[in-house]
Amino acid sequence: MATGKINVSVENIFPLIKKFLYSDHEIFLRELVSNATDATLKLKHLTNIGEASVEYGNPVIDIKVDKEGKKLHIKDQGIGMTGEEVEKYINQVAFSGAEEFLEKYKDSAKDSGIIGHFGLGFYSAFMVAEKVEIITKSYRDEPAVHWTCDGSPEFTIEPADKTERGTEIILHIAEDSTEFLEDSRINELLNKYNKFMPVPIKFGTRTEALPKPEDAPEDYKEETVEVDNIINNPNPAWTKQPSELEDEDYKNFYRELYPMQFDEPLFNIHLNVDYPFNLTGILYFPKLSADLQVQKDKIQLYQNQVFVTDNVEGIVPEFLTMLRGVIDSPDIPLNVSRSYLQADGAVKKISNYITRKVADKLKSLFTENREDFEAKWNDIKIVLEYGMLSEPKFYEKAGAFVLYPTVDEKYYTLEELKDKITANQTDKDGKLVVLYAGNKDEQHSYIAEAQDKGYEVLLLDSPIVSHLIQKLEADNENLTFVRVDADHVDNLIKKDEEKISKLNDEEKEKLKTTLEEIVPKATYTVQLEAMDSTAAPFRVTQPEFMRRMKEMSQSGGGGMFGMGNMPEMYNLVVNTNHDLASNILNTEDKAQQEALVKQALDLAKLSQNLLKGEELTAFVKRSFDLIK
Amino acid sequence: MATGKINVSVENIFPLIKKFLYSDHEIFLRELVSNATDATLKLKHLTNIGEASVEYGNPVIDIKVDKEGKKLHIKDQGIGMTGEEVEKYINQVAFSGAEEFLEKYKDSAKDSGIIGHFGLGFYSAFMVAEKVEIITKSYRDEPAVHWTCDGSPEFTIEPADKTERGTEIILHIAEDSTEFLEDSRINELLNKYNKFMPVPIKFGTRTEALPKPEDAPEDYKEETVEVDNIINNPNPAWTKQPSELEDEDYKNFYRELYPMQFDEPLFNIHLNVDYPFNLTGILYFPKLSADLQVQKDKIQLYQNQVFVTDNVEGIVPEFLTMLRGVIDSPDIPLNVSRSYLQADGAVKKISNYITRKVADKLKSLFTENREDFEAKWNDIKIVLEYGMLSEPKFYEKAGAFVLYPTVDEKYYTLEELKDKITANQTDKDGKLVVLYAGNKDEQHSYIAEAQDKGYEVLLLDSPIVSHLIQKLEADNENLTFVRVDADHVDNLIKKDEEKISKLNDEEKEKLKTTLEEIVPKATYTVQLEAMDSTAAPFRVTQPEFMRRMKEMSQSGGGGMFGMGNMPEMYNLVVNTNHDLASNILNTEDKAQQEALVKQALDLAKLSQNLLKGEELTAFVKRSFDLIK
Repeated sequence: MATGKINVSVENIFPLIKKFLYSDHEIFLRELVSNATDATLKLKHLTNIGEASVEYGNPVIDIKVDKEGKKLHIKDQGIGMTGEEVEKYINQVAFSGAEEFLEKYKDSAKDSGIIGHFGLGFYSAFMVAEKVEIITKSYRDEPAVHWTCDGSPEFTIEPADKTERGTEIILHIAEDSTEFLEDSRINELLNKYNKFMPVPIKFGTRTEALPKPEDAPEDYKEETVEVDNIINNPNPAWTKQPSELEDEDYKNFYRELYPMQFDEPLFNIHLNVDYPFNLTGILYFPKLSADLQVQKDKIQLYQNQVFVTDNVEGIVPEFLTMLRGVIDSPDIPLNVSRSYLQADGAVKKISNYITRKVADKLKSLFTENREDFEAKWNDIKIVLEYGMLSEPKFYEKAGAFVLYPTVDEKYYTLEELKDKITANQTDKDGKLVVLYAGNKDEQHSYIAEAQDKGYEVLLLDSPIVSHLIQKLEADNENLTFVRVDADHVDNLIKKDEEKISKLNDEEKEKLKTTLEEIVPKATYTVQLEAMDSTAAPFRVTQPEFMRRMKEMSQSGGGGMFGMGNMPEMYNLVVNTNHDLASNILNTEDKAQQEALVKQALDLAKLSQNLLKGEELTAFVKRSFDLIK
Repeated sequence: MATGKINVSVENIFPLIKKFLYSDHEIFLRELVSNATDATLKLKHLTNIGEASVEYGNPVIDIKVDKEGKKLHIKDQGIGMTGEEVEKYINQVAFSGAEEFLEKYKDSAKDSGIIGHFGLGFYSAFMVAEKVEIITKSYRDEPAVHWTCDGSPEFTIEPADKTERGTEIILHIAEDSTEFLEDSRINELLNKYNKFMPVPIKFGTRTEALPKPEDAPEDYKEETVEVDNIINNPNPAWTKQPSELEDEDYKNFYRELYPMQFDEPLFNIHLNVDYPFNLTGILYFPKLSADLQVQKDKIQLYQNQVFVTDNVEGIVPEFLTMLRGVIDSPDIPLNVSRSYLQADGAVKKISNYITRKVADKLKSLFTENREDFEAKWNDIKIVLEYGMLSEPKFYEKAGAFVLYPTVDEKYYTLEELKDKITANQTDKDGKLVVLYAGNKDEQHSYIAEAQDKGYEVLLLDSPIVSHLIQKLEADNENLTFVRVDADHVDNLIKKDEEKISKLNDEEKEKLKTTLEEIVPKATYTVQLEAMDSTAAPFRVTQPEFMRRMKEMSQSGGGGMFGMGNMPEMYNLVVNTNHDLASNILNTEDKAQQEALVKQALDLAKLSQNLLKGEELTAFVKRSFDLIK
């Protein structure tokens, strides 16, 4: 048996880096700016603890594009490197300086915000550059050095005449990467990855108007001055304590995050925990647009103020991916498979923490200002209803703040609703019947009839409402939901009331036979009911169970298999106590009788939005003829 | 000045690989199976050209999970390695054996299908394994060797007693990767990445019924046998020539690709080009569902039969991402940024080639079997219309096959349509007027009136149709599109016809004043027209320009800024020659007159789907009262 050591063939390291280091080449800029930030914060830390006797000052990271010279410069005023350190940190690939630094100054460095995560970062420069130079001078009293490497493993190192402390990286951009010589592209990248990094980043200059002097003459002409264009906000809101922030600060930060978003957020949730994991962030409930798909993936994930991704799948519970905002945590493993992420204990805890914080916030909003919470209900309900269906832990807490609005815009919690309707809406079997509508306009006549009886009618119009209802019924004994057009109003909540019919059994039988000859059998089942003589004479209804199963089947999952494609079936409820019923029964002329039934059926279909196309055109023409 | 060589610190190579090699750890299996395939195909090539004097046989790649021993085995019957070759290919990281082999046998190996792309692939094993063993025996008459490495750079190598040719890789799966010890997970990965690789891959066994013997007794009991479970199809349809394939073969391959998809594809496009780039593949037009977003990203990208990704953004023109199928090309750069991909010449050519092939196929389908093409039109139109709007090259070709269906399901090309309608639908200014409806049901009465005049009415109901119409008008002089409810039928196509009004000017003035007092001003503009006495008396219309700009603005892009939120405005067209007009004029009783106008307005609103909610309920109640 022989032993040996794996030999890394150095000639192949650069092609390897270029090909595999990151799938997205643009990442190089994030890495280099992270290193510059790192070098600056290290110096700050050393001056703070008295290990460096230099002035920290107000260091800036300076990015410059030299399009003509095909160069990109990244210059910091940080800790710098001695020749020896260049040898150690640069010439030895895969040796993370930040990690070593953190190890050495473990206790004191803990809160200094050093990024120290992207150890191999510097070499990502070779993904876009054919040659890279480093000109660097340490904060220690040692000569500056100039390192050059053309992407082969050979490098040169020589003394440099740089006098200010810090490091300048010069990338000679390769032919296939000239996009990174465009100001607009660099600006885009800095905005994407570095917008909230902790050291100011300068990219070019911009013109600013000078303040008008107090003694300015009448014909004062505005004077302008060139100032540094700082692209980042080194102290974003989420790094502060909630107690330091006003409502306006949260709104301003939202505008900073989404400059193209005109709607204001409804409210925010400040996340701030450091045990058993480290997480800060601010989540916002936005006004949701109709297209829910477009809403998703707006939450940005950061690690120590460096942007990582806007795909937070697996980290944020799915129902909250419609939210916006920022999450910053060094404890979320990167570059791992999704299944690993989902199995990771820390990530699970983070996800549960976020769910809990959102539920707590919703509860406190509800308790502290119910009126305001109700006003926002329609904009947040989809998220909450989806959360109730998908996250058991959220469902448990939701009872305390989830609202059920009526068509008259009153808002009840489920418990309040039960109290409110128990007296009037308990049926003869002791079941509490909640009536609801899916659309105020389309079900107007049904709603009106239910309200005439003193019933409360909820307006439940979310796409997943049939699933939610199903769950609420399963979890609340003796509670049942019925849509207002599921039956004639007297049958929605069945009570022990004797109904007196104007028609005798023989007349009813005759009426039924007549109707069934005229009304299309395949679609409508005739159902005679003895009701108030003022109640609608003809009504098209659709039984709750069938309709709900169909809806559930259509909105994915649940319901009964294949129900989504069943033909629509309705009941035609005819009020035998209405004059029209007697009128139909007593019309001798068959043609006239048929015309009467058809007109009545058309009117009933109109109320249920079923009269369309050719039938509607014929109805309108007939009706015009009646009044001309 | 000093020079030197970058030193790759070998101690750090494994953590580096684990962290950076692939963001998705599951890729390791694709890499190892690719290597095994590679080794097998190399042997096939060498036997073919007479350089290896062994029997190629029917080699299989065998994958085994040993859950108890926490091991995963990948075993091939390929070329194998000698001790020297292990030293060369394994101990030297980043040295791609396949590339060297291809270089050496350049000409003869060209078509042998050797993958040779994933040079560093073997080391991806360390992403999931804490220890890796290789037991390998070369096809040459040399002793087998056993290599072991625990993830430090130290390895051991010793003789092995393996007697069959080939390589076995044994992964000792690490604690954080135990998911890869689940049969179901390995099965999932093999199906995802290796389903169409060119060497059979065995994963376990399955039970198969033996054929019933001819002389089986009456009470014959089915006998079963364990057979190898081969998870891949080594000769997928796209690797064959179109001439070898029947329609049924394409359908079978579609079912192989999408086993959960029950609809059959409408038709397919076989891609096959080897100059100036190499590309094979089969694209399918699926039946589109209503939710277009869900449709996207179903095309799979392969490289030499190895699955790479199902994100083909930038490679396939956007309008074709709603298609399904497979694209296989070694010429598409991987692991590059999207902007680089879009700028890459080869990728641009590939995208253009695909667009052209799709257009050619559509043209030939149209030419060869127009009836069938027409039957499929509704399922493919969205893709084509979107293509016309987004790809100028596709738009140029689209004239030859894009259809414009009428409400009666006749289908015309634009040129055919022009010919058909020139005589009857040219207005007094010489403009050719194309009438269309957006919905047959909702606009039924308007369509009926236009058809009574002998006009053709198109049915254009795609969500982007307003944009398409706008473009067609811009590109076709003297062609204009008008929706049937844009004005009263006589005004849709204005001709030089003298209209005789039954009412004199004074009566008209009086009628107009009366109507304007009753009809809500903010929404309806009263417009008196002298028309056929049989034409509808009241009609609600909405001018084409306003409506179209609104629609364009709402469906994103185009139109006029802010138009999407304008209130709806309509014209109320009153036919002064209809008896109803005289009737209104001559009704003395103000209340009766108002009731008449309101009923007429309600009926006109019904035809335009504008009578809803409370208004509709009141209308239905009033109408019931009329007939009771």
